[in-house]
Amino acid sequence: MNAEVIAIGDELLIGQVTDTNSGYIARQLNRHGIELIRVTQVRDRAEEITAAVNESLSRVSVVLLTGGLGPTKDDITKTTLCEIFGGKLVYSEQTQASNDALFARQGKEMNELTRRQAMLPDVCTIIPNPIGTAPAMLFRRGEKILVSMPGVPFEMRNIMENSVIPIIDEMFPTRGHIIHTTKLISGFTESRLATYLSDYETALPSSLKLAYLPNMGIIRLRLTARGNDRAELTALMTRYSSELSELLSGHIVAEEDMTPGEALGKLLKTNGCTISTAESCTGGNVAARIVAVSGASEYYKGGIVSYDNNVKTAELGVSVQDLQTYGAVSDAVARSMARGAAGKFATDCAIATSGVAGPGGGSPEKPVGTVSISVYKKGEEITRTIKFPPSDREKNIERFTSTAITMMIELLMQKK
Amino acid sequence: MNAEVIAIGDELLIGQVTDTNSGYIARQLNRHGIELIRVTQVRDRAEEITAAVNESLSRVSVVLLTGGLGPTKDDITKTTLCEIFGGKLVYSEQTQASNDALFARQGKEMNELTRRQAMLPDVCTIIPNPIGTAPAMLFRRGEKILVSMPGVPFEMRNIMENSVIPIIDEMFPTRGHIIHTTKLISGFTESRLATYLSDYETALPSSLKLAYLPNMGIIRLRLTARGNDRAELTALMTRYSSELSELLSGHIVAEEDMTPGEALGKLLKTNGCTISTAESCTGGNVAARIVAVSGASEYYKGGIVSYDNNVKTAELGVSVQDLQTYGAVSDAVARSMARGAAGKFATDCAIATSGVAGPGGGSPEKPVGTVSISVYKKGEEITRTIKFPPSDREKNIERFTSTAITMMIELLMQKK
Repeated sequence: MNAEVIAIGDELLIGQVTDTNSGYIARQLNRHGIELIRVTQVRDRAEEITAAVNESLSRVSVVLLTGGLGPTKDDITKTTLCEIFGGKLVYSEQTQASNDALFARQGKEMNELTRRQAMLPDVCTIIPNPIGTAPAMLFRRGEKILVSMPGVPFEMRNIMENSVIPIIDEMFPTRGHIIHTTKLISGFTESRLATYLSDYETALPSSLKLAYLPNMGIIRLRLTARGNDRAELTALMTRYSSELSELLSGHIVAEEDMTPGEALGKLLKTNGCTISTAESCTGGNVAARIVAVSGASEYYKGGIVSYDNNVKTAELGVSVQDLQTYGAVSDAVARSMARGAAGKFATDCAIATSGVAGPGGGSPEKPVGTVSISVYKKGEEITRTIKFPPSDREKNIERFTSTAITMMIELLMQKK
Repeated sequence: MNAEVIAIGDELLIGQVTDTNSGYIARQLNRHGIELIRVTQVRDRAEEITAAVNESLSRVSVVLLTGGLGPTKDDITKTTLCEIFGGKLVYSEQTQASNDALFARQGKEMNELTRRQAMLPDVCTIIPNPIGTAPAMLFRRGEKILVSMPGVPFEMRNIMENSVIPIIDEMFPTRGHIIHTTKLISGFTESRLATYLSDYETALPSSLKLAYLPNMGIIRLRLTARGNDRAELTALMTRYSSELSELLSGHIVAEEDMTPGEALGKLLKTNGCTISTAESCTGGNVAARIVAVSGASEYYKGGIVSYDNNVKTAELGVSVQDLQTYGAVSDAVARSMARGAAGKFATDCAIATSGVAGPGGGSPEKPVGTVSISVYKKGEEITRTIKFPPSDREKNIERFTSTAITMMIELLMQKK
């Protein structure tokens, strides 16, 4: 079964806001056996919204709208949907009561603009939004449905999970099934892994597909089963997933999809290890990835952002001589930084980075994109200086950060 | 003049990759007087790409494609474009030579897959890609153009700036003009600013529009002039922009559009101040925002991520008694952290955060979303404990980080 998303809002089309809602919806639909075949972003214009809605409804069974439901006059989605589906706005007591309760909880006062949120099309089924003022709305055209959701990601996600997915499950029970299993693999390049798994891949039944999603040293290996018989798919998946795990024994960072930061957290907990960070060029990004994981306080103690070389010596015990002899971007300095952090914060493990993020600061020997990374675990370490191909500061910092986390995972995997 | 973007790739439609290219293109087009009216994301399927291309070409003069140009067999954009525009793939010596040079520079070896990148449609104008293997391709249909660009953001941006924008400027010289001026404003809420500027806004000529783009305490105030006479627009813009600056004197953080991190950097340089950070809940994100700005080493010295309370006491001199009496999330602790960082790193300014990012760790008194932030400058400070409405961990950390940077800007503006 196919679906489309329409994201509405001038802010998307002038590039002021990045649409992250569509990606989230894509992942949710995919997980529930629904293929997202197109995403359309349009401006807050009635004729453009109308065209996009009618086009999508001509192609697929489920159309999901996000955005355009705010209380200001620019947001015309609600009246446009009324026109498309031939209804008018009427007052919803239920929605007003829900919004009154919400405002009371937050100690805010209701104004004219927020009161308008209770005016809703009489041709839709209202899907309550317990954490925001704009409810979702379900419209039908023949066997097809369109659900309009608020654009606030937190509210949209709540409505997707608690209402939209269950509604789709109930309305389209006989659709084909998709099951995914994802494993995180370390210690392989993509081409080496593909070669290693070529016999396995050739022997897969036609309902199973294997996909390689490499990212900075970690490969997400996704096995997808597609078909109409769920029980049969589950059995096939169990069998081929275990076979894959056996083949890759010792290289599996995680048996489910997660961010490298989450995988690192999981490995640290499994190993009963604590960790700290010492960052120069990545300036807090490694720490930020670790802390992004809920429950990080179990293993993460703290970190130093040693942007200035004086901080490297004063706080991390890097020797002035090493800085002078090898430079700040060197194996020797990164190694001292990692050991310095582990000592200072009394942690089992530590991650250290020092590099040239650019655009300035590069030299022929250490061009922009060069980074020295050291990861440490109880006396063991991996230290490498890597030169990445030319890119901008943002991308360099991201690569340095991801590589540092991957190397820590590599070291934790080695010692398992 | 109107344009559309088509972003191609299965990875977008399964939510594995977020399309940030479209937002970048939107901002570039907008700056050059071109309205982006629709973005479409489609899968790597010939019939879906063909449909999207023909639909877009029926609506607008400029269609920009990104993605789908990699060397693997999934990327079928090139052959599809051949079919749409009635051509065939031919070998481009120029492209092969460029790719050979690129590989030589990077010390990599050319394989069969990369060699395929030099096979290009004979019905397009090749736009060289000096930093990647897939060149861009320009196709024409009557007066309209379609440019297909690689999806790698760094490569696409380079091609957009150096080739596509100049080509559009040359091909469509008589289009209407758009001029933007953006100012960053602090010390106002959106509604108070709108009230304060209502006379000014009412008196604006019809070719000028004012937009309020608030984000966590900083308002981006954008004045847009639209019309056919560029000289006239420039004169109007100069006049009304200066008037606006006079009206908002003392509240203007920056006279041009920039990130809050960049604005903070600019203010620190203007004031000749250095800065350090002390972060608990934001775990390095404040430091990361500061370091994201090229040249941050001029003013940023370093930071402590004091995730564990022991680190707060040992590294930042927070008193155990304050931690016990007021808790880690309190004005008292945030204040000590900021002063501790300024002392430790010998900086003029410091930013400190301590909060509950969730989902765990909340209490009735300090629910998830509560944060204490202290900003310090040479003996002066602003310290606040703020409760944000319910959200997820990621959003909370982002809000805490943005608010901390805004507060530091506020303190620097006060003392100007």
